[in-house]
Amino acid sequence: MKTVAVRNIERTDNEVASALGKLGVATVHEAQGRIGLLKPYINPIYKGARIGGNAVTIMAQPGDNWMIHVAIELCQPGDILVVACTTDNTDGMFGDLLATSAQARGVKGLIIDAGCRDVLDLEEMNFPVWSRAVSAKGTVKNTLGAVNVPIVCAGQVINPGDVIVADDDGVAVVARKSADATLTVGLAREALEEEKRKKLASGVLGIDLYNMRPRLQEHGFTYVETSADLD
Amino acid sequence: MKTVAVRNIERTDNEVASALGKLGVATVHEAQGRIGLLKPYINPIYKGARIGGNAVTIMAQPGDNWMIHVAIELCQPGDILVVACTTDNTDGMFGDLLATSAQARGVKGLIIDAGCRDVLDLEEMNFPVWSRAVSAKGTVKNTLGAVNVPIVCAGQVINPGDVIVADDDGVAVVARKSADATLTVGLAREALEEEKRKKLASGVLGIDLYNMRPRLQEHGFTYVETSADLD
Amino acid sequence: MKTVAVRNIERTDNEVASALGKLGVATVHEAQGRIGLLKPYINPIYKGARIGGNAVTIMAQPGDNWMIHVAIELCQPGDILVVACTTDNTDGMFGDLLATSAQARGVKGLIIDAGCRDVLDLEEMNFPVWSRAVSAKGTVKNTLGAVNVPIVCAGQVINPGDVIVADDDGVAVVARKSADATLTVGLAREALEEEKRKKLASGVLGIDLYNMRPRLQEHGFTYVETSADLD
Amino acid sequence: MKTVAVRNIERTDNEVASALGKLGVATVHEAQGRIGLLKPYINPIYKGARIGGNAVTIMAQPGDNWMIHVAIELCQPGDILVVACTTDNTDGMFGDLLATSAQARGVKGLIIDAGCRDVLDLEEMNFPVWSRAVSAKGTVKNTLGAVNVPIVCAGQVINPGDVIVADDDGVAVVARKSADATLTVGLAREALEEEKRKKLASGVLGIDLYNMRPRLQEHGFTYVETSADLD
Amino acid sequence: MKTVAVRNIERTDNEVASALGKLGVATVHEAQGRIGLLKPYINPIYKGARIGGNAVTIMAQPGDNWMIHVAIELCQPGDILVVACTTDNTDGMFGDLLATSAQARGVKGLIIDAGCRDVLDLEEMNFPVWSRAVSAKGTVKNTLGAVNVPIVCAGQVINPGDVIVADDDGVAVVARKSADATLTVGLAREALEEEKRKKLASGVLGIDLYNMRPRLQEHGFTYVETSADLD
Amino acid sequence: MKTVAVRNIERTDNEVASALGKLGVATVHEAQGRIGLLKPYINPIYKGARIGGNAVTIMAQPGDNWMIHVAIELCQPGDILVVACTTDNTDGMFGDLLATSAQARGVKGLIIDAGCRDVLDLEEMNFPVWSRAVSAKGTVKNTLGAVNVPIVCAGQVINPGDVIVADDDGVAVVARKSADATLTVGLAREALEEEKRKKLASGVLGIDLYNMRPRLQEHGFTYVETSADLD
Repeated sequence: MKTVAVRNIERTDNEVASALGKLGVATVHEAQGRIGLLKPYINPIYKGARIGGNAVTIMAQPGDNWMIHVAIELCQPGDILVVACTTDNTDGMFGDLLATSAQARGVKGLIIDAGCRDVLDLEEMNFPVWSRAVSAKGTVKNTLGAVNVPIVCAGQVINPGDVIVADDDGVAVVARKSADATLTVGLAREALEEEKRKKLASGVLGIDLYNMRPRLQEHGFTYVETSADLD
Repeated sequence: MKTVAVRNIERTDNEVASALGKLGVATVHEAQGRIGLLKPYINPIYKGARIGGNAVTIMAQPGDNWMIHVAIELCQPGDILVVACTTDNTDGMFGDLLATSAQARGVKGLIIDAGCRDVLDLEEMNFPVWSRAVSAKGTVKNTLGAVNVPIVCAGQVINPGDVIVADDDGVAVVARKSADATLTVGLAREALEEEKRKKLASGVLGIDLYNMRPRLQEHGFTYVETSADLD
Repeated sequence: MKTVAVRNIERTDNEVASALGKLGVATVHEAQGRIGLLKPYINPIYKGARIGGNAVTIMAQPGDNWMIHVAIELCQPGDILVVACTTDNTDGMFGDLLATSAQARGVKGLIIDAGCRDVLDLEEMNFPVWSRAVSAKGTVKNTLGAVNVPIVCAGQVINPGDVIVADDDGVAVVARKSADATLTVGLAREALEEEKRKKLASGVLGIDLYNMRPRLQEHGFTYVETSADLD
Repeated sequence: MKTVAVRNIERTDNEVASALGKLGVATVHEAQGRIGLLKPYINPIYKGARIGGNAVTIMAQPGDNWMIHVAIELCQPGDILVVACTTDNTDGMFGDLLATSAQARGVKGLIIDAGCRDVLDLEEMNFPVWSRAVSAKGTVKNTLGAVNVPIVCAGQVINPGDVIVADDDGVAVVARKSADATLTVGLAREALEEEKRKKLASGVLGIDLYNMRPRLQEHGFTYVETSADLD
Repeated sequence: MKTVAVRNIERTDNEVASALGKLGVATVHEAQGRIGLLKPYINPIYKGARIGGNAVTIMAQPGDNWMIHVAIELCQPGDILVVACTTDNTDGMFGDLLATSAQARGVKGLIIDAGCRDVLDLEEMNFPVWSRAVSAKGTVKNTLGAVNVPIVCAGQVINPGDVIVADDDGVAVVARKSADATLTVGLAREALEEEKRKKLASGVLGIDLYNMRPRLQEHGFTYVETSADLD
Repeated sequence: MKTVAVRNIERTDNEVASALGKLGVATVHEAQGRIGLLKPYINPIYKGARIGGNAVTIMAQPGDNWMIHVAIELCQPGDILVVACTTDNTDGMFGDLLATSAQARGVKGLIIDAGCRDVLDLEEMNFPVWSRAVSAKGTVKNTLGAVNVPIVCAGQVINPGDVIVADDDGVAVVARKSADATLTVGLAREALEEEKRKKLASGVLGIDLYNMRPRLQEHGFTYVETSADLD
């Protein structure tokens, strides 16, 4: 691995990133054609947070959080730290001290494909984290990684300056160049969903709303009256 | 697989199902002789819900929620949707739109051996879900499954019209024909437990309450005074 | 296995144990040189509990909670029950009745490398549990194990009378003979952290606070201005 | 659970069962409409075995192999032992002594949703086992289960007298009443596959053999010449 | 997702790819600076295969192998099929018929982040597969994916035309533009290792060969004569 | 952690250790009262090896094999390297170079609660390894651990000089002070098993050989003639 940090990255407009955050993960994931979702083993350490921001990316080594310290210097307000690891690891690479430092620089939260600790403090600080584990296991600062290079985190490619969207449903990434278009589609989709929600709430069936009956028949789906008709 | 939906199923009396729900999973599981418990990888998406109702069963395909749309039409007030999948899958087959539709028909909740999304909305709607994962991963409507046929969900056979009981401890199924008897035993057990709880709270030891000392001795269990006596 | 219970164990001073509990798992783990942490698959059943106390140890058999009943008789106020199992098992070996009995004897909580049930009741009783699973699966009382012998629980050796510290970050064990020293180091560390926290909050970077720049350079870490400089 | 053994079960004709075994798991699974496959965590302990036979079913308790001893008495030549467990367990419930006894009664092999030991001996004896784990962990004979009742093993319902088919691809179950029909379809499918295999070997593409091009187009699938055309 | 296939990809020279294959995964992974290794849950279905070739990439949907059929048409001799899936899935997307077709076009093997079946046939055909599971679970051809686009497979970005190296140790990817350089470094490394192997075989210690003693001392590592000196 | 190596350890007699190895894991585990078995996620990298020897213990850091180099100097003929890690890790900490060095010193094999690579070479060298994973992931030599201190490996406490027994069934540890007694019991057990095996092979049922019928009856186990009698 090239052990390097890139000082300056092209970011997505912070307002666009925040607006994507407000749409939420499920809508953003759908709006960009069902891509960009991190694997569901990444979970929020507490409920109710919802953020959108620019990715500052970190490739860390197992049991080592050196690169997170390096990355914080390169953060700007509105950024989100995104940590991948060269191998599966659950150590608590991030806690309240790093969060204090990150928050002082305006960082909105952390996505980490490893562990996190001091979770009660983090919730009290209102610094949200999405991680693969909660673990108090301490880490060293002995082995180099990289900062602001493309990484694969929980199954998705993340480039520095991509938009990260995270809420109780998980985490999604939107490529920087797709951010505007995804926001437009997402807002439209949200409006549309509101309409559908009203119809469904009034008792219209999805099977009718989405006109599924002809396609069910065409595929050979059948209805029987009772289980006695099954054999 | 026979790709079919059964329109009419024999249900358990809704009051019996609700009463079993009030007893809770642990008591119901014990009351029917320690059977019927779904595997513990099925967890509630939020805390504090406790329901009992009739199973409407769904066999879905991985990454596909077509059959859930089909099933909702066949639901009645007091029903609980129960989704199995032909293979292990964590995709978010169910979200707030489907929940809105289900709730409009009086469905009490969902058990799904797959993923679920919009979990914050679902909690606000008071529509409880027990799932194997939270995932925003969208699904298609391309491959047929079946509705209201016997399924295996998280290790248990569930027939349409069986009673589903779900709370913070997990999910249990009670066969329709055993519902009345299980309720009777469960209520008796609950009363008995209350008595035991009082005795234990007053300081009576379980080892005495359950008369374990003779059996320990008979099996060769010994006591030593200190660890120095162990060798 | 020797099927035996040791009646009298040497305990750590309860005030020391409580003080370690107040420091919390992450600090205690660091204070004793990054040892003693249980694997992160052991999680609290509800948030916000933080305890420190003396371990009463139990080696149980899968699907069998007989030894927990035996252990409760040997507990004193301030103790924490710690259950290992001879093989991986998620059955609900512990519920509200056992908790009632334990609480009546002054037990502060339970660590169990298996399952736990009645979690809503346990939270209402304010009896915290850290377990590998929540499961209503009932257990029998048929096969002997041991009480107050050394066990391995979630990857750590635990001797009776060792101090258990547990909070939202997980669970750590402190050997009895190290308890005083660990408390001293932990309190000093806590003070030091408070200082660091203030500096970091004021905008000082960790990379400067910990004087990382020379070491980064020495290890060959480089900075480039933009990603165009990467190739 | 009803703790009972059923002495006499209706079996499938042994020749039909053996013929299904020769077809193999993948063909049988397809021939009955893609149902009946056990989850893929059940693996053969050695390569190259391929069997078909009648299920003698066992519901065991974790860490306890008592019911296997009970079941062997009820076996006939051509049977296959199928063991489910009331909870997830990897203990070595079956080894060379039980295999010797089973083989003496003409049992063809074992499917176990738990562990197995003495695997080298079992291979030398030519007694194939499909298990979820290899583990030398010994088991007790303390808690009752059941024999020759319907069970769920690795996600599938198995009734005594159903046909079990097992090979290097895993394990499938064929309901007794479907055995003849499945064999007929399977044999036809096998012949058909041989034809397809020849065509594919000669260079005919699957995309043509299965006439996929029109359907790809209809679904909106596109081809571009180079990756430069992707944006 | 863009549902598209790219017909023409830039490939790495087949001789370079084969030479990288001969070096093996461990050497190639080291030669390119410890990057490019797929996660270790991808395993060979049989032992002893060792291949290097050009990646033809496939993004498949869970339970659906349609895109593999599409991809085979675009393969050339020396290629290796690499299948990612939009979500974790173990279905048997690939078996002996697809292997026959692939082999007819000169494909060397398959890497699949999903399941594979007919493993005995595949071994007899000498068509090696590295998969996350063996499963006979059949798949449909209902939902579009993509062919020859960049994918993430088992944690690594793979572009069409990258070199895949696979053996008993797992699977690694070498970016097309790095293939020549990696081969040069790898061959040098191999020669160097042979030298080291001889020294180590003759009894020279690694601790001396790599001159570790001063660095151990510098880091504060100590030696004691016996365990009595530990406290 | 105390970062230290203990030069001289008390070993078990090599002949005793070898004799225990010949008995095999299952017999040894039973002979010492069903204790000492490592968790079944530790598997041999190739089949057919069976060893017994003295443990030289290593506590390693994730992604770091420095301590293995340190340990090899302290090995004697007949020893077995046993590696624990401070956190769950699958990196390939051990390959053919280390094996060459270890073999040159008479080391019989390796048990590692982490990954291993060059598995084909290791098999050709006849150097057996039991590991939790096969992975080519390279490791660094940056962070200190310890050698010849007590460790927990795959759930068992292992002290330097304890006997390790490993075969196709897994790995067991025998405490040094129990080695002689365990060998005696194990040899007797083996003889007894041979007798049982003959009886079982001749058709005697286990249910009779172990006199289970009265105990089944006493526990309330019943027999019915057919499944029609179940309700």
